Amino acid sequence: MLKLLSNQGVTAPKGFLASGIHCGLKKNNLKLDLALIYSEVQANAAGVYTKNKVKGAPIYITKEHLSNKKAQAIIVNSGNANTCNGSDGLVKAKRMAELQGKALRLKTSDILVASTGVIGVPLNIDAIKDGIPMLTERLSKEGYEDAATAIMTTDTYKKQLAFEFKIKDKVVTIGAMAKGSGMIEPNMGTMLSFITTDLNISGEMLSEALKESTKISYNRVSVDGDTSTNDMVLVLANGLASNKEIVEKNDDYYTFIDVLNTLNITLAKMIAKDGEGATKLIECIVSNCKSEKDAEILSKSVINSPLVKTAIFGSDANWGRVLCALGYSGVNINPDKVNLSFKSSVGEVEVCKDGMPLPFDEVKAKEILLKDEIQILISMNSGKYSSKAWGCDLSYDYVKINGDYRS
Amino acid sequence: MLKLLSNQGVTAPKGFLASGIHCGLKKNNLKLDLALIYSEVQANAAGVYTKNKVKGAPIYITKEHLSNKKAQAIIVNSGNANTCNGSDGLVKAKRMAELQGKALRLKTSDILVASTGVIGVPLNIDAIKDGIPMLTERLSKEGYEDAATAIMTTDTYKKQLAFEFKIKDKVVTIGAMAKGSGMIEPNMGTMLSFITTDLNISGEMLSEALKESTKISYNRVSVDGDTSTNDMVLVLANGLASNKEIVEKNDDYYTFIDVLNTLNITLAKMIAKDGEGATKLIECIVSNCKSEKDAEILSKSVINSPLVKTAIFGSDANWGRVLCALGYSGVNINPDKVNLSFKSSVGEVEVCKDGMPLPFDEVKAKEILLKDEIQILISMNSGKYSSKAWGCDLSYDYVKINGDYRS
Repeated sequence: MLKLLSNQGVTAPKGFLASGIHCGLKKNNLKLDLALIYSEVQANAAGVYTKNKVKGAPIYITKEHLSNKKAQAIIVNSGNANTCNGSDGLVKAKRMAELQGKALRLKTSDILVASTGVIGVPLNIDAIKDGIPMLTERLSKEGYEDAATAIMTTDTYKKQLAFEFKIKDKVVTIGAMAKGSGMIEPNMGTMLSFITTDLNISGEMLSEALKESTKISYNRVSVDGDTSTNDMVLVLANGLASNKEIVEKNDDYYTFIDVLNTLNITLAKMIAKDGEGATKLIECIVSNCKSEKDAEILSKSVINSPLVKTAIFGSDANWGRVLCALGYSGVNINPDKVNLSFKSSVGEVEVCKDGMPLPFDEVKAKEILLKDEIQILISMNSGKYSSKAWGCDLSYDYVKINGDYRS
Repeated sequence: MLKLLSNQGVTAPKGFLASGIHCGLKKNNLKLDLALIYSEVQANAAGVYTKNKVKGAPIYITKEHLSNKKAQAIIVNSGNANTCNGSDGLVKAKRMAELQGKALRLKTSDILVASTGVIGVPLNIDAIKDGIPMLTERLSKEGYEDAATAIMTTDTYKKQLAFEFKIKDKVVTIGAMAKGSGMIEPNMGTMLSFITTDLNISGEMLSEALKESTKISYNRVSVDGDTSTNDMVLVLANGLASNKEIVEKNDDYYTFIDVLNTLNITLAKMIAKDGEGATKLIECIVSNCKSEKDAEILSKSVINSPLVKTAIFGSDANWGRVLCALGYSGVNINPDKVNLSFKSSVGEVEVCKDGMPLPFDEVKAKEILLKDEIQILISMNSGKYSSKAWGCDLSYDYVKINGDYRS
């Protein structure tokens, strides 16, 4: 049912165009730093935002513009987060929307705004103003590549994706681009994700679907629901696929949410794998817990432990650190019931049963942990609930990248 | 009133002897791995322990032996944490106490036990058994140096300290040795601290004082009250200073608690500064909060942020990351009231006022941050409570040390 459209992104759905340019926010003038996504017709739209008490100015403006659950374009800059800039930040975020609206002959309130980059530095709005004409002119079906590039900060590769699926007899397309990097939660590497679709769905149902899907995708990359100051996921649905509008949780809604979950989980894993300095994707699956909440907290506690992360970086089956992270998670666990194994494409090694060490083949364990996608499989043997979380290892390059990010 | 006894440790108080030897738990046979502290008379004793649900076997045995609030010796090994070893671990921890008790002609229950090192590897009790005769024989006033060395794991220097003070006309001495390293909370580098004093104080008051003091010292090194599987602070008070026994919270008690706080805070800072791979001590002071709890959570959130830690490693005044850590701490803060500055021995630079950037001298900021003891000073301007927390920067060496700890 679900068809991956290879090498496609936010312009795959009907009626969407995109572009990306260098306007001068990044010092290196070969680096794109301004992106635009545009729908030829007004779209239903929804957003989820950081829960951090310190919020970037764009968050406030975008929320305001989404109060009618409608939008037609998203302008995004990298190189400056426009955060901790007080009223000046809000004025400039609003101004970005206004300028882009004029260029597209749209109402300011139909433009959504996002920013990512350094905090506490005034935004160079003139550079954006000067860039907007070219940004607008370059809108095209091919522009998804430049747009996905222009939102990158320390990301090492573009993150985009598109799928085709069917709602009854109608072909529907969904596309997305995202950026991650940083260690993401509980830290500060902004996570942005923009989703476009030609699905016909009400603003209410779109918003509901996005919230539901975010919980089991982006929110499971690292810890705590504590997100960066600028994190944002936006979706535009312009209805051009001409399916009967989804206005309730019927079969069509569930078809859509399945696709949306697959899309978002795939992007979330891409983000985790491309964490700053990361060499490996870590997936932690905790099963047989007393509650889903317990399973979620436990899996995030493991994913977020610097000592687990460094052990995986070193391909070291130091499972005691995993047990330790379960122990300090805050969940009332019974250590004597824990089973644990490490798994990758070349096999699985059980290292701990009922909280006690198992003799294991160190050579085999090393071979498994040398792969670039590692699963940590944990059974708590205390119930029927399970959860997953994704993260990355902690390497020398993480320190290098973050030791002097501003220069 | 308080006199620092330079180059002294756990044997500074009357009646205490110590020793340290290599028994074979560490592979390198030049490295000491077994320590003993002994009081010539039975002492009142107290302990505080990790809150991790996964606990090392020694924790259970030491707690049991302290149920009468009395003890006369502490045996400590490094190289193996004796954790996640099930009933075998408990049997061996008990056996350590029993063997040491026999060698000292003491009851098993008068011996306290601690272990630090790798988790989930059976303890080589034979090596300890074979080492105990020499360990006991070497007990001396000079043995404090070897004892402090023998409890080290990835610590880069010994942590010990002694003070002299007066209770009325009696001279009282207090000494201590500690080990830290790892990132400590919320991770796994075991924190151990052993305090000796010739003060005459009841077991109840000693226990009360230790709990009170731990809260504002060791528990403020990094985050959450989540401690390693083996963390332990023990104090022995043998009464040989002949002061009138402290049995209530009188002036003498408060004199003692002041000294104990100074001792423990000094050791806590030493531990923070010697975090694995650390090049700098970070002290975060958050003031003018709505409650002490808020202040504590905020200061720990900053101290624990990998992005703050790497910025300090790189001597980068990236204060947005500090603000971000305040924002995701869980405390309901008002970002628009936050003032922030960085300080060290060469000066102070204000970087943020009322949540907004201040223009600052980058050269001066760099000069300040290049020092090895950095203060992050934050005012929330929302109340009258304040708190401190200590941590360290995050360096390449942290990754190196932890990427392959077991080999």
